[in-house]
Amino acid sequence: MVKYPHRIIRKQTPTVNKEATVNFANRGMSFESAINATNDFYLSRKIAVIHKKPTPVQIVKVDYPKRSRAKIVEAYFRQASTTDYSGVYKGHYIDFEAKETRQKTSMPMKNFHAHQIEHMANVLEQDGICFVLLHFSTLKETYLLPAADLITFYQKDLGSKSMPLDYIKKRGFEIGAGAYPQVPYLDIIEKNLLGGEK
Amino acid sequence: MVKYPHRIIRKQTPTVNKEATVNFANRGMSFESAINATNDFYLSRKIAVIHKKPTPVQIVKVDYPKRSRAKIVEAYFRQASTTDYSGVYKGHYIDFEAKETRQKTSMPMKNFHAHQIEHMANVLEQDGICFVLLHFSTLKETYLLPAADLITFYQKDLGSKSMPLDYIKKRGFEIGAGAYPQVPYLDIIEKNLLGGEK
Repeated sequence: MVKYPHRIIRKQTPTVNKEATVNFANRGMSFESAINATNDFYLSRKIAVIHKKPTPVQIVKVDYPKRSRAKIVEAYFRQASTTDYSGVYKGHYIDFEAKETRQKTSMPMKNFHAHQIEHMANVLEQDGICFVLLHFSTLKETYLLPAADLITFYQKDLGSKSMPLDYIKKRGFEIGAGAYPQVPYLDIIEKNLLGGEK
Repeated sequence: MVKYPHRIIRKQTPTVNKEATVNFANRGMSFESAINATNDFYLSRKIAVIHKKPTPVQIVKVDYPKRSRAKIVEAYFRQASTTDYSGVYKGHYIDFEAKETRQKTSMPMKNFHAHQIEHMANVLEQDGICFVLLHFSTLKETYLLPAADLITFYQKDLGSKSMPLDYIKKRGFEIGAGAYPQVPYLDIIEKNLLGGEK
């Protein structure tokens, strides 16, 4: 007669129960899709307005066929000079980058370019809320690491090829794998980065 | 013996002196370039971090030639679902769209898509600072119109093909043509939209 299995499980284990929750990866969803779905959820519930920026492309040649729309026939990918996601939550500027790795003990630092680190520092200086979402796909664990901690690591350990998971665990926050929304990162922002403001 | 001509002119005419100031158009600069240069100025002086989003492109086919970088060989322009510019100023989320017309008495409303109007309404609901920069190239006049006033006009006059300059002058703020930065829109935000906050 277990009528509300979720409620019972949550009472017994107040921390995240990885076996019981439905992880987005279990449902064949990529980390990027899971973040996009989360942002769609936030938008539809009027919780926040956060979008992924379009992929930066350098357009070289465009054809304008008659009776047909313009066709780009030569273009190249450009390196992003900012982060991938930005938007607004209760008036606050939100800015983040998302990275994924299959490694189990660290996040490769080659994922972060100098331009992006500089952009994050600029955002922090303007009192924006800036962070990275780090997904360890093999472990099925996702963390929110404040940009300040990423920058500290980057500046101190410029030579290191990867950021240890231990450092991320110590400075960051684990994001429970929610069924819906898939990556509820705003819970962390609300509880830990807005200074108790409601 | 006019040693400080700018200071003397400003004393005599506290309002914008269109003849005396160097307009970006006089220097062959497009409105978009002028806004980008303004954002570069704000970034370099650590006043704000505001970027133009990349043009949204739907990528259909990519070639991966050997010993050469990936080449996009078929892609199409997509309609933007948000506005063109966004960023952070003193912690506040800033979001705007820029439009230009050669007309002298009104701004064509076909410049604004339903998706963009909806995005602006969403941003306002999250307490973001949202507006449009409207440039009348023949008149050499530029206005900042708060998004709330654009939305009001859009909803009330859904049938109208254009928004009268009179309406823009009444609800908006003229932006003086500064030599540097070229389109100093944050002055208007600071004075009029931040509620006297410093």
